Amino acid sequence: MNPHFGPVALEKAYRLINHGPTVLVSARRDGVDDVMAAAWACGLDFSPPKLTIVLDKATKTRALIEASGRFAIQIPTAAQVELTRHVGTRSLHDEPDKLTRAGVSLFAVDRFDLPLVAGCSAWLACRLIPEPHNQSTYDLFIGEVEAAWADDRAFRDGHWQFEAAGPEWRSLHHIAGGHFYAIGEALDAPS
Amino acid sequence: MNPHFGPVALEKAYRLINHGPTVLVSARRDGVDDVMAAAWACGLDFSPPKLTIVLDKATKTRALIEASGRFAIQIPTAAQVELTRHVGTRSLHDEPDKLTRAGVSLFAVDRFDLPLVAGCSAWLACRLIPEPHNQSTYDLFIGEVEAAWADDRAFRDGHWQFEAAGPEWRSLHHIAGGHFYAIGEALDAPS
Repeated sequence: MNPHFGPVALEKAYRLINHGPTVLVSARRDGVDDVMAAAWACGLDFSPPKLTIVLDKATKTRALIEASGRFAIQIPTAAQVELTRHVGTRSLHDEPDKLTRAGVSLFAVDRFDLPLVAGCSAWLACRLIPEPHNQSTYDLFIGEVEAAWADDRAFRDGHWQFEAAGPEWRSLHHIAGGHFYAIGEALDAPS
Repeated sequence: MNPHFGPVALEKAYRLINHGPTVLVSARRDGVDDVMAAAWACGLDFSPPKLTIVLDKATKTRALIEASGRFAIQIPTAAQVELTRHVGTRSLHDEPDKLTRAGVSLFAVDRFDLPLVAGCSAWLACRLIPEPHNQSTYDLFIGEVEAAWADDRAFRDGHWQFEAAGPEWRSLHHIAGGHFYAIGEALDAPS
């Protein structure tokens, strides 16, 4: 186990996605694991923390989530830009060894039957809040965050550490066609 | 009129928010204009482009949107971090001259009865798609983007120009309590 892996208080979990990073979505059902990339993930509430995620009907990950009612959201790092691109453009439907080819290594946490992607900076374990109209009409899914964790080299004491961590820890923000920006410099605006 | 202001093709409009910036939301009703900041704005569809935005019940902007069925999303720049913080923490309910105090200058575009914030890098004119259950249960609003524009110093030919533009053009990504990150360096992952 990565010694830098540790829990994030639920009331701070929204901070893991508040800056709009591209995320990896993972799910498991009947021994099948999948991971996909998604730029359309977003905070929805603070307490209990909720989030939205848009999942195309063509993805295997969506089918696993609909069947299991669970998913994980994780924040990939600049060091994982090729992995992120790979899982975001190939489908488990067409490439059964997609995760191996993408270089994805999975791990699990006690009490959570979810495939978590090693090397990310943060992870959120979510329970699907079923909203059939949103899911069928808009491909829009709502999750309640039940637990969160981070690598303390990237997020510690409730704060991202981008200023001090190496550039390989920066979050990824996809525009289109494999063109990303890493998160940049801190700017503060006291009220 | 700012000579750098020009239209963005609707099929490229999703790229204006795909990297997860904190946005400004504005709306108008019966001669009342309001502008607020929101970190929870997200793409929802490509064509026609749609987006989601989370609007707290306490905000005046939400009331204007519910009454008018229209709103604008705009992308503030690093140069506007204090403006963004101000409109994100003060309410028109309590501070009637909020926009003046925040340094907000508004302009309009023909055929769109919407208050647009000068100095931003991009603007999206949206029509509310009424979804009463989402709005009342989750504070979640869905908009269809009917037109989009950008300042060509920041976004041109369908692409953000962060690499070449000055640092004052970088988008803002809020974490919490007035602590933002600007968007950073480009990273490409060809498929």
